[in-house]
Amino acid sequence: MNRRIVVTESEQAPRGRATAEMVAARAKVSRVAVSRAFNPHTSLKPEKRELILKVAQELNYTPDRAARALVSGRSHLVGVIVPDVCSHWESQEIDALTTALQAEGFATLLFKTRTDYSMDEQLLAYMRGFNPDSVIAFVENVKPHTLARFLDRAVPIYIHYPQAELADDAGDEPLHDRLNVLQRDGVEQAVALLQGFGAKRIAYLSGAEKSRANGARERMLRQVMAERGLAPPVVAGGDFSYDAAYQATIDLFRVGEGADAIFAANDVGAFGVIDALRHELKLRVPEDVKVIGFDDIAQSHWKSYNLTTVKFDLDERVRALVRLILRRLTTPDAPGFQETLNTRLVVRGTVG
Amino acid sequence: MNRRIVVTESEQAPRGRATAEMVAARAKVSRVAVSRAFNPHTSLKPEKRELILKVAQELNYTPDRAARALVSGRSHLVGVIVPDVCSHWESQEIDALTTALQAEGFATLLFKTRTDYSMDEQLLAYMRGFNPDSVIAFVENVKPHTLARFLDRAVPIYIHYPQAELADDAGDEPLHDRLNVLQRDGVEQAVALLQGFGAKRIAYLSGAEKSRANGARERMLRQVMAERGLAPPVVAGGDFSYDAAYQATIDLFRVGEGADAIFAANDVGAFGVIDALRHELKLRVPEDVKVIGFDDIAQSHWKSYNLTTVKFDLDERVRALVRLILRRLTTPDAPGFQETLNTRLVVRGTVG
Repeated sequence: MNRRIVVTESEQAPRGRATAEMVAARAKVSRVAVSRAFNPHTSLKPEKRELILKVAQELNYTPDRAARALVSGRSHLVGVIVPDVCSHWESQEIDALTTALQAEGFATLLFKTRTDYSMDEQLLAYMRGFNPDSVIAFVENVKPHTLARFLDRAVPIYIHYPQAELADDAGDEPLHDRLNVLQRDGVEQAVALLQGFGAKRIAYLSGAEKSRANGARERMLRQVMAERGLAPPVVAGGDFSYDAAYQATIDLFRVGEGADAIFAANDVGAFGVIDALRHELKLRVPEDVKVIGFDDIAQSHWKSYNLTTVKFDLDERVRALVRLILRRLTTPDAPGFQETLNTRLVVRGTVG
Repeated sequence: MNRRIVVTESEQAPRGRATAEMVAARAKVSRVAVSRAFNPHTSLKPEKRELILKVAQELNYTPDRAARALVSGRSHLVGVIVPDVCSHWESQEIDALTTALQAEGFATLLFKTRTDYSMDEQLLAYMRGFNPDSVIAFVENVKPHTLARFLDRAVPIYIHYPQAELADDAGDEPLHDRLNVLQRDGVEQAVALLQGFGAKRIAYLSGAEKSRANGARERMLRQVMAERGLAPPVVAGGDFSYDAAYQATIDLFRVGEGADAIFAANDVGAFGVIDALRHELKLRVPEDVKVIGFDDIAQSHWKSYNLTTVKFDLDERVRALVRLILRRLTTPDAPGFQETLNTRLVVRGTVG
């Protein structure tokens, strides 16, 4: 099984694209030097790199990554599996990640999962066809064992909430790299602030039912509340969206027994909570009901919300993800890498 | 210049990946049929396609697009050039486009431009290296002539505002395909509604100064206001962001002479306007000042804003973009294609 596929240079260079040889000849350097000039991870004298890039620009030459991918085994593509690009949290993540990856010579390839969190095998097979160098996924969208089976080289990166029970991927085998998010500090600061301002009946506005991020957040909240002598939270069923949070909040007060504080699984949900309290239920925030979110997205400082929230720092997160990608490319067979980040409370106007 | 590059099958099939030949043998079909089964644009008997895909799944086989790209000249990648993935408008567009493209067998490749709208040649050369089948860009981020020079095969798609003056790309040569957006209807309905509710001093909260979308919007507003006997709008200088809109609105009333209505270049700007009016200037919306936005992003129905706005329909836009991509791939040498979409006013609670 060593069949040879023959590809002619002319197929790689449609419409008279300049070749590396042409650049090498004009710049009076070797063909290898031209390759090195275009790879930011190889060393080359600055003036030599500058000359080569200048000549390449004159000749309108760039290396063809599709051709290079077959030889180097690198596609320079990083797949990101997301359920919802236009969720605020995801889009801010993708934006920052694309900027950071571009600086390292990679491009971001987006794959959308189904919104019911059941990423099917067809989509995984589809993604594999693009041969990404790395894949970033959330454990709730696709399981590590399933994903690993569908990737030839890429080692996926998962975002984990380690205090939570993650029964079916508890193994420590190097199937994937991890970004661990410690929720305790932020959640504990949030509950302490609510207690400090006299909250007694704290409700949890949940994210999507099947979401592991949601499950981990609720478990951490219950644990911290129990430790601090509070009764377990009433749960209002949301799905991370504004509209579901809006309706759930109305139900909590009109059908249920209400609450004097609401901890929302994400900031967008907290916006729905605040708008339902103020515009539908005619309650004041924070005087009648205190609200805390989770994420600290860019919209949380908008004056209509001015949300007190648990921050999972975007810049730190992106830097950690890029470090994981680069480490894995450098040492493809190393055991699973881990990075760990913390959360903290950002105090604004919805508690107090 | 017909140098041959030899690639062995083993390099394409790392870690024992199944080959198309193995699938063909097991399914008792030809190698060509296996290829056809994975291409949604070729005809094949449904039961035959189903059998092949079933066998392929059993063998854990998927075609390698990197290898196929060299032979077919297609990368199945669609590049999207955006200044800001996390802007609400862009992220909703990317989300819908990724879903639609995935259904057609393509993946979305993101490229970020500089926020000063000066996409430099280095980034274009970088993008070319990924050999996209198509590229979607906004004319304000990169000029058609510049972009065309950097692509080998892909014909870029531009979003145009045809009533505006676009001096440096006025030519009709088939350098690119176009999605034309007619702003007149929506802007005229907006101004008529403001007039109908007695507005006399209408201000324009601008987008980024160098943005052509902003320029086209302002010119259309001036034209419509002149036709309807209104004095030209006072311009408050924003940049499409919430924060700039917030500050510009405060300046408009504290330093300038205020206004009884504000037309914002985009919805996020309108949110900044509303929050500055209510929370800083203690003015009522819509009683004291009426506000209209542009886009109708998903957040515009949120109760804190409940924004009256000019809608540029997202689903229509994405369907038109996908049609342009598929038409161009089918007939690569056809003259420039065009699709045209209209805008309309969506009336909510910020005028009246």
